[in-house]
Amino acid sequence: MNIYSTLLAFVLCCAMPLKAFSQADWQALPMTASSPANNPTNSQKVELGKKLFFDPRLSLTGTVSCNSCHNLMAGGEDSRPVSMGIEGRLGNRNAPTVWNSTFQASQFWDGRSPSLEDQAKGPMVAEPEMGMASHENAIGRIAAIPGYQSEFRAVFGNKNPINLDNAVAAIAAFERTLITPNSPFDRYVKGDAKALQESQVQGMKLFKSIGCIECHSGPAFNGWEPDMSETEFHEFPRNLDSSYVSRYNLTQDLGRYSVTKTDSDKHAYKVPTLRNIGMTAPYFHNGSVSKLDEAVRVMAETQLDLKISESETKLLIAFLSSLDGPFPEIIMPRLPILAGDTVLAP
Amino acid sequence: MNIYSTLLAFVLCCAMPLKAFSQADWQALPMTASSPANNPTNSQKVELGKKLFFDPRLSLTGTVSCNSCHNLMAGGEDSRPVSMGIEGRLGNRNAPTVWNSTFQASQFWDGRSPSLEDQAKGPMVAEPEMGMASHENAIGRIAAIPGYQSEFRAVFGNKNPINLDNAVAAIAAFERTLITPNSPFDRYVKGDAKALQESQVQGMKLFKSIGCIECHSGPAFNGWEPDMSETEFHEFPRNLDSSYVSRYNLTQDLGRYSVTKTDSDKHAYKVPTLRNIGMTAPYFHNGSVSKLDEAVRVMAETQLDLKISESETKLLIAFLSSLDGPFPEIIMPRLPILAGDTVLAP
Repeated sequence: MNIYSTLLAFVLCCAMPLKAFSQADWQALPMTASSPANNPTNSQKVELGKKLFFDPRLSLTGTVSCNSCHNLMAGGEDSRPVSMGIEGRLGNRNAPTVWNSTFQASQFWDGRSPSLEDQAKGPMVAEPEMGMASHENAIGRIAAIPGYQSEFRAVFGNKNPINLDNAVAAIAAFERTLITPNSPFDRYVKGDAKALQESQVQGMKLFKSIGCIECHSGPAFNGWEPDMSETEFHEFPRNLDSSYVSRYNLTQDLGRYSVTKTDSDKHAYKVPTLRNIGMTAPYFHNGSVSKLDEAVRVMAETQLDLKISESETKLLIAFLSSLDGPFPEIIMPRLPILAGDTVLAP
Repeated sequence: MNIYSTLLAFVLCCAMPLKAFSQADWQALPMTASSPANNPTNSQKVELGKKLFFDPRLSLTGTVSCNSCHNLMAGGEDSRPVSMGIEGRLGNRNAPTVWNSTFQASQFWDGRSPSLEDQAKGPMVAEPEMGMASHENAIGRIAAIPGYQSEFRAVFGNKNPINLDNAVAAIAAFERTLITPNSPFDRYVKGDAKALQESQVQGMKLFKSIGCIECHSGPAFNGWEPDMSETEFHEFPRNLDSSYVSRYNLTQDLGRYSVTKTDSDKHAYKVPTLRNIGMTAPYFHNGSVSKLDEAVRVMAETQLDLKISESETKLLIAFLSSLDGPFPEIIMPRLPILAGDTVLAP
């Protein structure tokens, strides 16, 4: 590299928007997720969190666990337009996948929760989800079970180990193991040119050239970068002239505005990950679109003002399929019990 | 052994009720469950059955799987008095444990189903359980999923592999793996004198001497014997003078009469297994008794006309705890998906 090419590269760097040069366009998913300083991971904590994640006794009726709406045997969600909690109660948004949810700077569609720990507090007491009257009631159920008592002590020490903060710390620690690196895309990015089929490579180029990558950037294709602290929110739908807007009722939900009450946040959302996207139908915040090909067309038209062809749609979907799994093997936990009794109210 | 003792033994055999000499009083649980001639087990079938057992898409709302009411991470039931199916709908009986359910000659509290295969057909279309409008609808959902298509073909061949009979055959094959031999009691019976604590041995003697064993006999303590074809049903409650009868509403349910319409079957039930009984609270067909010690007192008084002391109750419970687990390790299945789509109705 001579002085002129070095200079040229420098000038180009300065002239381009920061993002385009702050990292490579294509990044493999990290092989492990880092844990925050206030919740360092260890295997005992992960095992405890796994039990809590699968424990339906954290819901009023004893029928709904975290896994009910974030099914780890499938795409980390529930295949429904909006989630169904206890007694058939309906939520108002589509369940985001819990797979790779650690690779985000905030949680929920509107980013109202800054961490996995904070997020896990919500559903227990959400009326249409697990429906507990209070966190005290939920924690009280756990505290009544000797097996949980000893596990919380082993993980968090002897001083008041069973409390909400510790319970969600354990759940979050488990969730940080729920990642799917080493997809065909990841292997391709790391140098295995044969990891992708030709149609997938073409779809990858198209994904960039038409601008999908502007929002769906970074290793999880959700705008997240390692060590970022602020979530970027984006307006959806952007092109209000699209007939999809009314067909799929895309503007009823006010998005992040419901959290901030700031006008500029109307219809602003976090960018959802595209990892394992073929396993998380139906699509969008309201789950209004059943099929991925239609979701791709809707995104192209509402966000990029593009009508894409059938062959382009197929190429994009071929590329997206290269972001699938593999999923880690999970051994079912044994849930501790209160011998000869039930913690569910009679 | 001389001629007189041989003769004496023969005379005693003929004089005693058949059951007392047809097997030993105490039998270890079989280490494996045999499969019926029309549904031989193999590992591929078991794996397919495991997927179906955990698949909530077999329910109308996509929220209830077999595992919802028969939780394999716990006692094989749901810790509730009566089960809760889709949309908060309540059943009218307590969910029996699926653990060791293969060791019975019939299924359901009233024995209305002759096999695990037949039993598995019920909940899919039971209005208060999985609530599908028809078996065709349930099977249609499975048939729409390519991963299931290939697995059914691999297990059942290429000719119309996805049908109800094959689906329940696979579920039953999986259920035959859900057994918990090698409990402390089993090890004791096989000769390990140290496997039981002294209180458990005392409880074991009491269990026999007061007559619990008359109904709770055999390796699963449910009246079942290997190769038996007919279930024995027993009246519950027997002693109608007990105050427990009204307190726990024990006579509202007509038991097996609801199946046979035969007067002598009124309030007759299958004998439930006592294996892992500490993990299956609340108790009885209506789940009316939360605690095991109370359930033991109720049984003594209503069935044996005995008021037992606190120390006797404790000894019996100590013995019952010797029938617990261990549970086989289960690796979570990956549920096949319809890529980029959902089989749940929009």
